[in-house]
Amino acid sequence: MSKHLYAAAVCTLVLLGAALAGCVAAEQSAGPAEDRDILYQASTIDALLLGAYDGCISIGELRAHGDFGIGCLHKLDGELVAVDGGFYQIRHDGTVHPVADVETAPFAAVTFFDSDETIMLDGPMNLTVLQERVLEHLPSENYFYAIRIDGTFPSVEARSVPAQERPYPRLVDAVADQSVFSFQNETGSLVGFWTPAFAEGINVPGYHFHFITDDRTGGGHVLDLYLEEAEVQIDMTPDFSMSLPTGGDFPGLDLSGGLQEDLATVER
Amino acid sequence: MSKHLYAAAVCTLVLLGAALAGCVAAEQSAGPAEDRDILYQASTIDALLLGAYDGCISIGELRAHGDFGIGCLHKLDGELVAVDGGFYQIRHDGTVHPVADVETAPFAAVTFFDSDETIMLDGPMNLTVLQERVLEHLPSENYFYAIRIDGTFPSVEARSVPAQERPYPRLVDAVADQSVFSFQNETGSLVGFWTPAFAEGINVPGYHFHFITDDRTGGGHVLDLYLEEAEVQIDMTPDFSMSLPTGGDFPGLDLSGGLQEDLATVER
Repeated sequence: MSKHLYAAAVCTLVLLGAALAGCVAAEQSAGPAEDRDILYQASTIDALLLGAYDGCISIGELRAHGDFGIGCLHKLDGELVAVDGGFYQIRHDGTVHPVADVETAPFAAVTFFDSDETIMLDGPMNLTVLQERVLEHLPSENYFYAIRIDGTFPSVEARSVPAQERPYPRLVDAVADQSVFSFQNETGSLVGFWTPAFAEGINVPGYHFHFITDDRTGGGHVLDLYLEEAEVQIDMTPDFSMSLPTGGDFPGLDLSGGLQEDLATVER
Repeated sequence: MSKHLYAAAVCTLVLLGAALAGCVAAEQSAGPAEDRDILYQASTIDALLLGAYDGCISIGELRAHGDFGIGCLHKLDGELVAVDGGFYQIRHDGTVHPVADVETAPFAAVTFFDSDETIMLDGPMNLTVLQERVLEHLPSENYFYAIRIDGTFPSVEARSVPAQERPYPRLVDAVADQSVFSFQNETGSLVGFWTPAFAEGINVPGYHFHFITDDRTGGGHVLDLYLEEAEVQIDMTPDFSMSLPTGGDFPGLDLSGGLQEDLATVER
């Protein structure tokens, strides 16, 4: 479990910086202010796209890094949603199950969710419009943000994927067997992230949302939605931390890129 | 919230997994084994390429994350080398100065160096051949590695860059004024990293070395070298941590990529 010890000599830095040439260096800081403002992820999206579905991190370990996030389960057995500290598996059959600490994930991203900005949006909006409107509130496209959207959704289309067996197919082939669930007038939460473009290959550039109902009985990876009003909470996480799997398929993968088309297919 | 324990199911799953295709899923872990096995960096290489030269992290903060690494100084005022816990600035005039904790860096990567593998290489080798031969010893191209190469170098060609003033030029233009230093038969260290291809935009994919002499009187960003024998130490760092500047030029930059040509020019 990684606990970063961060010296907070930032005051001195700020004073010195202010003296230098009136530059704006003074106000900027790359030093992690808070352990809670770290987006933590295990493995990379490109490894998942190439079929690295063996769990590489326990849910217990993920809990140590956050109470909010998304991912998938060992062997690609369903979608993972973490919200308010609960970790849930949304299976291919649509059922939702709390996940035990000993279970594992091949890919996941989590953080401790602390809203920096809360906005109310009025619809009607589909997923594309919702994302455009949230973008107007992001201070910059160059950070990772955790984003939580709560409301009663007139419609959400979400999917889950079935567990895979070796030899693992690529994700673009695995999602051909996805189940799609349609929710109407469900109260629930969109749980997800904005990833900056420069992290392509590492996580999904732009938005990536999973959905879970308030009663924790349904959800999945969001394909589309229709929304009339919603509360959007944005948590900027300027620090990023990633653990790469030290065994399994990961070391042997060709992670040199070029998987944009695969990603676009599996996300839609 | 009720927690179901699936331990028995997971044991069965793991045993089954091991039986299937002899995979090593059971032994792999993405959880950070050691705090010291983290490559920590501030800002991104693409931000530096675009001219974000204001220091965003103090040297004191960098020390908290490592005793070994490379980077540059506020306003691009020289090359930064950290080795054996000492942090050194190699100025444009070729002089070397210990860096105070209150000074700042716009871009840097550090780790606590613990060699996982030590190899002896016999020459003759130029930089290209050296890098190819080290690559044969990396367990996989998909991790970050800190690499230290010690020896007496028949020749090293290294550069440093002059401090810049606003409006900051792009790095490709700033290096047009670089100083190039030629070292002959100097005993010293190459200090640097291997970065996996998927971290393009974040750090320099492949190798990136700075040089410093044993007596700490000279060095710079390595352009080429000639080597007859050397000791190579490799430290695999499967965990990666990055702090993005929360102010200055960073939020406004276009970090959507496409800077490969700039990078190739500034590195050579």
